[in-house]
Amino acid sequence: MKRILLSVEYDGTNYAGWQRQSNGLAVQQVLEEALARATGVPSLTVTGSSRTDAGVHALAQQVHFDTESSIPPEKYPFVLNTQLPPDIRVKTGREVPQDFHARFLSCGKTYTYRILNSRHGSALYRNLCWHVPVPLDTAAMEASLPALLGTHDFSAFQAAGGTAKTTLRTLDRAELLQEGDRLTLLVSGNAFLYNMVRIIAGTLVEIGLHRLCPDAFARALSSQNRLDLGMTAPPQGLELTEVRYPEAAFTDPASLRWHT
Amino acid sequence: MKRILLSVEYDGTNYAGWQRQSNGLAVQQVLEEALARATGVPSLTVTGSSRTDAGVHALAQQVHFDTESSIPPEKYPFVLNTQLPPDIRVKTGREVPQDFHARFLSCGKTYTYRILNSRHGSALYRNLCWHVPVPLDTAAMEASLPALLGTHDFSAFQAAGGTAKTTLRTLDRAELLQEGDRLTLLVSGNAFLYNMVRIIAGTLVEIGLHRLCPDAFARALSSQNRLDLGMTAPPQGLELTEVRYPEAAFTDPASLRWHT
Repeated sequence: MKRILLSVEYDGTNYAGWQRQSNGLAVQQVLEEALARATGVPSLTVTGSSRTDAGVHALAQQVHFDTESSIPPEKYPFVLNTQLPPDIRVKTGREVPQDFHARFLSCGKTYTYRILNSRHGSALYRNLCWHVPVPLDTAAMEASLPALLGTHDFSAFQAAGGTAKTTLRTLDRAELLQEGDRLTLLVSGNAFLYNMVRIIAGTLVEIGLHRLCPDAFARALSSQNRLDLGMTAPPQGLELTEVRYPEAAFTDPASLRWHT
Repeated sequence: MKRILLSVEYDGTNYAGWQRQSNGLAVQQVLEEALARATGVPSLTVTGSSRTDAGVHALAQQVHFDTESSIPPEKYPFVLNTQLPPDIRVKTGREVPQDFHARFLSCGKTYTYRILNSRHGSALYRNLCWHVPVPLDTAAMEASLPALLGTHDFSAFQAAGGTAKTTLRTLDRAELLQEGDRLTLLVSGNAFLYNMVRIIAGTLVEIGLHRLCPDAFARALSSQNRLDLGMTAPPQGLELTEVRYPEAAFTDPASLRWHT
């Protein structure tokens, strides 16, 4: 039995999210069915690093599964991409140790949230950004972000339904890039709570609209009150961009305490 | 009667091109129907600056039409975008003189052609680029482009079905930008023949694959033989990015000789 790790890009527009659902088609299900066909087993379960919501995209979702198949690990992209719809692409495949785990061994992730701040929306990028038609005060938005850096109790920054045992998280990057009317929020940290990046993006936009003060993040970190933050930004602006693992995850996973 | 000029962005993926067709839904038709509803007239004809093909995109297609409607010209984006599907967005509206013409008075256009040169395709940008999975020699590609600049007889650079009276064209920009595995071809000129940019992009890729020599463009300009050029690149990589008019088109169009 081999454990294989895939890196998977997907356009979440037409899916009910990453995780298998009873009420809609999930990326996980489509990938599992393609893998089952490719490896000739009746059914198979894959584990993703992040359970992205409906409409959320991934540039590099990390996915592991176990197989007895003799397909060389690096050939999985070629084998699977002929089976998958074009909005799901497997980019790389590699063998990892038996006790590697795509979710529990991750030590960091980067998310990108894209905002289009123009009068009228974009036809071309409509599924890849949040269209905010009112001018935003980007200086106020930028000023608000450093408060997020470091280790904090982010309990105010989660939607109901989160299952995390601790709400302590460490962010090492929270940056807003501006290129004309396109704003790009990059957030990197050791782990994220349910809807955390979308709550950060929604709050950031409300700061840019002067509905919230630039100290909203600092205030919510101290009050631990979800009501000190803004709306949850819509899913289509969000992309899981990178998932990081400690080097030992690929050499000696047993030596690692699992990050949960 | 007023003549109105709109700037329109569209994702061409789900359309049979710009021009009204009997065998598929065209962007022109969808826009005309939305305008007819908005202005309360039974039917209405719009004129676009460029007849983009099926699957080709536009960031700023220029479109004029005549109307007796009292809708303020700058309100057309607001009025129409509520009527239009999200893959067509009207970005601006303005009144222009009665003898303005979106197609005949254009003095220049810029097209963008996007190539993804990676082993596996992109899920997120699949409809916005041509995926070329084999490594390309970008130095050879770049070296080939200056031959296109200036005024030449581009008769080799058109597909059957072109209706141009002359095949003399002037290009002032033909540039390949590279950002990681994304190659962006920018071509700017006074006017373009049918499929001209897609033939340039297809030839450029064949130069990058060493199937054609870097002097292929120079050779075809001299031989006027379509067979000295490469394939016609697929439509989804192409975007009509900018359409230019002389200032007089907006002040005294009658003073201009029409560019055809």
